[in-house]
Amino acid sequence: MTARHLYQEIADRIATLVESGTFKVGDRIPSIRELSRQAEVSINTVKIAYSHLEDRRIIEARPQSGYYVCPKSPEIPREPNINRSDLSPRPINSSEIVMRIMEDILDPKRIQFGAAIPDPGLTPTEKLGRILAAETRRYRLESTSYAIPPGSRKLRSQISRWMLKAGCTFTPDDIVITSGAAEAVYLALQVLCEKGDTVAVGSPIYFNFVEMFKILGLRVIEIPNSPTEGLHLEALRQALQNNTIACCLVISNFDNPMGSCLSNRRKEELVNILAEAEVPLIEDDINGDLSFADDRPSVAKAWDRHGNVLLCSSFSKTLAPGYRIGWIAPGKFYNHVLYRKIVSNVASASPTQLAVAEFLKNGGYAHHLRKIRKSYSVKLAQLADAIGCHFPQGTRVTRPQGGFILWVELPEEVDTMALYREAEKFKITIAPGTIFSICDQYRHCLRLNGAFWSEESSWAIKKLGDLAKAQLGKVE
Amino acid sequence: MTARHLYQEIADRIATLVESGTFKVGDRIPSIRELSRQAEVSINTVKIAYSHLEDRRIIEARPQSGYYVCPKSPEIPREPNINRSDLSPRPINSSEIVMRIMEDILDPKRIQFGAAIPDPGLTPTEKLGRILAAETRRYRLESTSYAIPPGSRKLRSQISRWMLKAGCTFTPDDIVITSGAAEAVYLALQVLCEKGDTVAVGSPIYFNFVEMFKILGLRVIEIPNSPTEGLHLEALRQALQNNTIACCLVISNFDNPMGSCLSNRRKEELVNILAEAEVPLIEDDINGDLSFADDRPSVAKAWDRHGNVLLCSSFSKTLAPGYRIGWIAPGKFYNHVLYRKIVSNVASASPTQLAVAEFLKNGGYAHHLRKIRKSYSVKLAQLADAIGCHFPQGTRVTRPQGGFILWVELPEEVDTMALYREAEKFKITIAPGTIFSICDQYRHCLRLNGAFWSEESSWAIKKLGDLAKAQLGKVE
Repeated sequence: MTARHLYQEIADRIATLVESGTFKVGDRIPSIRELSRQAEVSINTVKIAYSHLEDRRIIEARPQSGYYVCPKSPEIPREPNINRSDLSPRPINSSEIVMRIMEDILDPKRIQFGAAIPDPGLTPTEKLGRILAAETRRYRLESTSYAIPPGSRKLRSQISRWMLKAGCTFTPDDIVITSGAAEAVYLALQVLCEKGDTVAVGSPIYFNFVEMFKILGLRVIEIPNSPTEGLHLEALRQALQNNTIACCLVISNFDNPMGSCLSNRRKEELVNILAEAEVPLIEDDINGDLSFADDRPSVAKAWDRHGNVLLCSSFSKTLAPGYRIGWIAPGKFYNHVLYRKIVSNVASASPTQLAVAEFLKNGGYAHHLRKIRKSYSVKLAQLADAIGCHFPQGTRVTRPQGGFILWVELPEEVDTMALYREAEKFKITIAPGTIFSICDQYRHCLRLNGAFWSEESSWAIKKLGDLAKAQLGKVE
Repeated sequence: MTARHLYQEIADRIATLVESGTFKVGDRIPSIRELSRQAEVSINTVKIAYSHLEDRRIIEARPQSGYYVCPKSPEIPREPNINRSDLSPRPINSSEIVMRIMEDILDPKRIQFGAAIPDPGLTPTEKLGRILAAETRRYRLESTSYAIPPGSRKLRSQISRWMLKAGCTFTPDDIVITSGAAEAVYLALQVLCEKGDTVAVGSPIYFNFVEMFKILGLRVIEIPNSPTEGLHLEALRQALQNNTIACCLVISNFDNPMGSCLSNRRKEELVNILAEAEVPLIEDDINGDLSFADDRPSVAKAWDRHGNVLLCSSFSKTLAPGYRIGWIAPGKFYNHVLYRKIVSNVASASPTQLAVAEFLKNGGYAHHLRKIRKSYSVKLAQLADAIGCHFPQGTRVTRPQGGFILWVELPEEVDTMALYREAEKFKITIAPGTIFSICDQYRHCLRLNGAFWSEESSWAIKKLGDLAKAQLGKVE
């Protein structure tokens, strides 16, 4: 038997194990070293076997983590066409569907593919409750008094320590506590923009940002996002050349809804482009801690030398959305943000600030993250797999390396707003693509929350696929 | 001894007891019935004695509560002059002092006469903490999940029940939970006003409202407040005739800073005037539960037949400011307010909503209120008394029947902004009058928070009086 045959044999054996379900979608397969020992073959032979399995899209490598069974998922979405005529400001059309999707959260009977809320089963509810009770006893006076902005010092200390992992060296005094990342971004927009100003934002756009722009009377330039590389920097450059832009808003890691991540090189470039143009950057890092790799990615703020980046984040996706604890590191806009926060609602709730601070300090936040990101990684792989099985041919799906949402591009004839309404009848809620843009784009796209995925909800994906196929049947 | 002599003797005896300190300022003296029995004189004789003591300003009657020793306090402030030329919109000048006053809260070494924060000693900290822990255990999932607006149903039910006392018959479905009354008012202003619009507001104006107007780019007509009767309705009528007004903002009960209360008749009239003019009313009732009388006063909303009143309140003054639980009953503007709330910060914190709901249901809220309003009533009386002793001649002070703040009118030559800066050196913080207006009024006035008053802080009132007198010495 030649070496060539050996690696083929190994590859085929793994492929059979996957096919038979011994290794399921999202499972980690043995490392190269392990298999080399177990199968008594050279490390190089296993390496070649694995690279062939990667080519056949049966397994995939994840940086610093190992090899995992790939979903039988469709292709990733196409790269956007960069069309110069699109890079001009536009007014915004209303969207009541956003309110419906938020209300849908409250109905426990629904299959929750809509709003990007985390799996309550992965929320450390009991531990948080215990910590909340203990901290309230420990800091009696502090728990009932105003946590006047910038907010709990202990919490700000923990955040500044944690963010060292993301390459940030700011101090507790650079941070203002907010009621979630939503408030952080909303404060930043209010500080940076007047009514009628223009914002450059990655597109597809997280739908609540669209509503903020609408409320604040802002104009918007949609900068296309690549499903793999994130914000299209050349398009941003063009937009900056041809327009007066008040600020740029980007979700730098595991973007909502695309799931893409800017590389370090591109983060640095983004910061430099905007610093040169003297346009502030609002950076939303709400999913940064949900990286499927061992280490969380950096933030663009790490390259900020001029206080030009306003970094926003929260613990809504990782700990508990109901605690409403977010934060902003507003750089040179610190005083303006602090002032807006105080005038808008005086302060954020004190007890939950104390609880989150203690969870970060002694609650095993890193350990908790390892657990949930593994779970979300498997859920997303299985969800993508189910889409591959049940959605119409030609459907494309993103393959994010963090977070818990997928962006799905259906054949162009599918109308996902109609799909939303049809799915509603079966108590399935989704986020139709059209609410992720102000330009009537993405009508054939949708965002799916994978946090609630389980084998039991696979019927809902089949149902969505059938509904989409039925639409295609009608138009054919 | 004739009957005339008898009542005089009784009056003199009481006066002596007050002078000797047996009855202190703010103490309740025996009821008419009690004294009649004890002194073995007719009820009528005691009645006459008490009415003479009232005339001599030694005691004062409080509705449904009895007779109390009066502070040796100065006159109440003069009625405002209604000047037609003032009833036109004006732009707003900035005020950084507001931020300083909020920051001052965090310094425990300061004498806190500045921000209107409640006495932490009167906050049911331990009970709230116990309830928070118990409710978090009881409603695990709810405590960590988003309380998507309108917010906790249990809390809204308790609020709608409680507000029956204020003459309101709205249901839980008419209420949206907010992060304090500040957010409630801020949401209402955003819903009702566009940049450049004009708001009619009672003056002196609670300083955070001034900052909201500034941030939202609003113009303001200051409607004078009477220190006894509240908003001057005839002035409001004139303003409505001559201007396009987007909304009217009024603190109807124990106004901040004047402490005045609109009577039921005037509340009804206010609602009718505005309904006829089709101008919405934002009513802030944040101090309504702090009435010194047994029953809390009504709200203007009780007379609202058209959904034209947006009633805002919170539990920040009565339970715990740090819990950040407020609410708004926005009438016909419900959907708009709900939408703004969701877009601004998604939701208010869940655990503190659960805790306040349970406190209202089973925590003895009414009992708690009886305790704190008695305490605040005594504190305000003693504070007014100290002002009477130590402030320059000609000083006037409000005599509110609820809440815990006093509005002080010093001789016109005193500059309270200078006083603020001088007092700072002695770690005393006050709220200078100028931040309560956009028209550079009230430079000789100041607001004092009486919640922290104790005999031990009387030196600080003496110091403030001395500083004011020194100013007068300089100008004389």
